[in-house]
Parts: sequence; C-alpha cells; structure tokens
Amino acid sequence: MRMRNKPWAEDYLREHLDCVDLDGDHAQSIREWFNNDNPIHIEVGSGMGKFITTLASQNPHINYISIERDKNVMIRVLDKVIDQNLTNIKLLCNDAVQLTEYFKPHEIERIYLNFSDPWPKKRHAKRRLTYHTFLEIYQHILSTDGEIHFKTDNRGLFAYSLESMSEFGMYFTKINLNLHEEDTGDNIPTEYEYKFSEKGSRIYRMEAKFHQ
Amino acid sequence: MRMRNKPWAEDYLREHLDCVDLDGDHAQSIREWFNNDNPIHIEVGSGMGKFITTLASQNPHINYISIERDKNVMIRVLDKVIDQNLTNIKLLCNDAVQLTEYFKPHEIERIYLNFSDPWPKKRHAKRRLTYHTFLEIYQHILSTDGEIHFKTDNRGLFAYSLESMSEFGMYFTKINLNLHEEDTGDNIPTEYEYKFSEKGSRIYRMEAKFHQ
Repeated sequence: MRMRNKPWAEDYLREHLDCVDLDGDHAQSIREWFNNDNPIHIEVGSGMGKFITTLASQNPHINYISIERDKNVMIRVLDKVIDQNLTNIKLLCNDAVQLTEYFKPHEIERIYLNFSDPWPKKRHAKRRLTYHTFLEIYQHILSTDGEIHFKTDNRGLFAYSLESMSEFGMYFTKINLNLHEEDTGDNIPTEYEYKFSEKGSRIYRMEAKFHQ
Repeated sequence: MRMRNKPWAEDYLREHLDCVDLDGDHAQSIREWFNNDNPIHIEVGSGMGKFITTLASQNPHINYISIERDKNVMIRVLDKVIDQNLTNIKLLCNDAVQLTEYFKPHEIERIYLNFSDPWPKKRHAKRRLTYHTFLEIYQHILSTDGEIHFKTDNRGLFAYSLESMSEFGMYFTKINLNLHEEDTGDNIPTEYEYKFSEKGSRIYRMEAKFHQ
C-alpha cells in the first residue's frame, strides 16, 4: 500500500518508542520487550492496521507484532493502537527479509500475510511473500507447530502460493476458495478486503504448516 | 454418474474383450496386454469417455486405460473407442480401490481424476478419491515422477483435495482456480464439464506429484 509522504510521520512514531521499533533496538529481544511469556503472532505488511488491532483487542493474552516498512502507513496502525489503548501490540518498521534479524529461531507461533502485493509479472516472482526465500525465513522463526494464515483477493497469487508452499514442503490445514461465502463468522476483514469484496471480488484464504 | 440399467450392457462389453477387462484377466499384466513400452496413463471414473478417448486419439504413443465401475456407463466409452477405431486404449470395469490388483508398483505415469463424486458430507469423506487411502494406492502404482491431474467444478472437493494431498506429502506443480478463464487452449472438456461450465460454474484444476 502506498500513502502520500508525510514528513511528520517519523517524528510521530519516535514519540512512541514504547511500542514502535524504528532502528532495530529490540532485535533478538522481542520477548523481553513484551515482558511476558504469551505466544507471539506477527503480521507481515499490516496496511492500515484494522486486522491486527482488532485481533489484539480480542486476544489480550497474545502478543502481536505489526510489521510494515512504510512509515506513512505505519502511523495509521499507531493511531489505532493509541485510540484503543492496546498494550499487547508492537510495531516494527522494516522489511520482511529482515525478520531473522529480529526474531530468534522458532520464537513465533503464527504469521499473518494479508493481501500482499501479488507482483503478477513472472520476473518479479521473487518479491512475492510466498516465494521460497521468504518461506525459508518463516520456517526459521516459526515454532515447529507454527502456522501461516494467508488471505488474498488475487487468484494468481493464491494459486502461486499453493504451488510454492507445497513444493517447499508445507501443507494446508484449512482452505477457503470463497471466504465470504463460507465464513462462519470469525473472519476479520482488512480495510482492503472490505472494499474489494464489496465490489464482488472473491477472497481466498488458507492456513498452512511446515511438514516436520 | 448413474445411468439407467441396460441388461444388454454386459453382453456388449463381452463381445470386445480385446479392449475390455471385466474379470481381472489382465491384472498384473497390463503391459503385456498393450504389447509395447509406451507410457501408461489412466483415468479413474471415465464417465461418458469423451476426455480419455480424445486424449487417446491425440496421443497415439501413450497407452490409456479408462477405469469405470458402472457397465451401463462403460458402454458409452466403448462406443467411442469402436467409432474412432482407437487401439491405444483399454477399458477396465472395476473400482478404484482395486487398482493395486491390476497394476504393478510404479507402472503408471499419470492418473486423471475428472469430476469425481464430491461426497460432500463429512462422514463420507473416506469415499472421496483424494482421501488418504486412495492417495496411498496412487503412490503405489505411480512412477516416482508420475503425476495426478485433477479437475472438478466442486469448490469443496477442490479445497479438501488440496488439504488432503498436501498433508499426505504431495505438491502442486500447476493450479487453475478458474480454468476456463485461464486455459491456454489445451484443455479437453468432459461432457459433464461442458454442461456445467455453460451454466457458469467455475472449473478448478491441479497437477500434483509426490515428494520423494
């Protein structure tokens, strides 16, 4: 998601270093930052943040980390964290390729990937968040029983991800090929999802694990 | 597929034992029956037979086997074999659970599963042709690089099959989540597929292999 550049974004984020990491200050010490033993769930690419802040408010005994590389987007997540006075969520401003610098091996219980950039051109496949180099990173930081939860409205990205993840040695514990027709009521739509499903786009969803 | 009972079906099939096996006469000697070294591809549940007879006419250097348990359906396949004078296709009248009785280990290069019965009720899951007990059978008879090609218009069966097959240790080399929008021209529609896609149903397709 691209947002207009806001010169004040960095200053605003720096005023809240209790829940924002801009410089890697908490790399390899995420557990200490939360200062509890609750499970850690992360979202890679949080966009406007409705999804992860809703989860955080619903599940006070889970620690959430919102990862977003664009400071102009991250301020929208921070707004929600402040408004709702959420204490179980931290914001990391960085790129997905840096995840192993932040997290210790197998420290994470769940990774959410929501409406990631589909990078539809074949020559850009390596930028898709389900390309095998990213799967290696997820495998490194996920617990042995950890899960990836993935949603998209992009048919091509979903098909590609099923291929890439199964080839890598992952399996799917739950697949929805038309989520909004099948949803039993516990889906939390993102801002983007709400907008596009209103227009009639199908939403695809999966839960995946690594074969041991 | 259910067809009205035709008392003459068995007699008609028995008149063509050169290409029809009703009693397991060619069990464990399929290769000898074809009397050549061409690859063997099978279709489990051939219905009216348009798919496999079209393939057989397009690919004279591949041996095809149509497996169908209902004699009243199989006669429709036989009609096509005779009309087109096809010599590279044999018809087996039996159930999928009997496949290992017919084929030697790793004798088959490809298995087609087209529009199999979805058995939508959970208590019938074990009858679905992608239930793990069937996958064991396919793994037994497929060559190490062999493939399963699967098509369905049933969204639930497709999602279930992606879950079941990946959990079993298979991976997907090609997935189409809306085949008729993505088809590059080499799809051969079955009779059933033609009818249902005309009504607007989406067709799902995958190619899958076993991890070694």
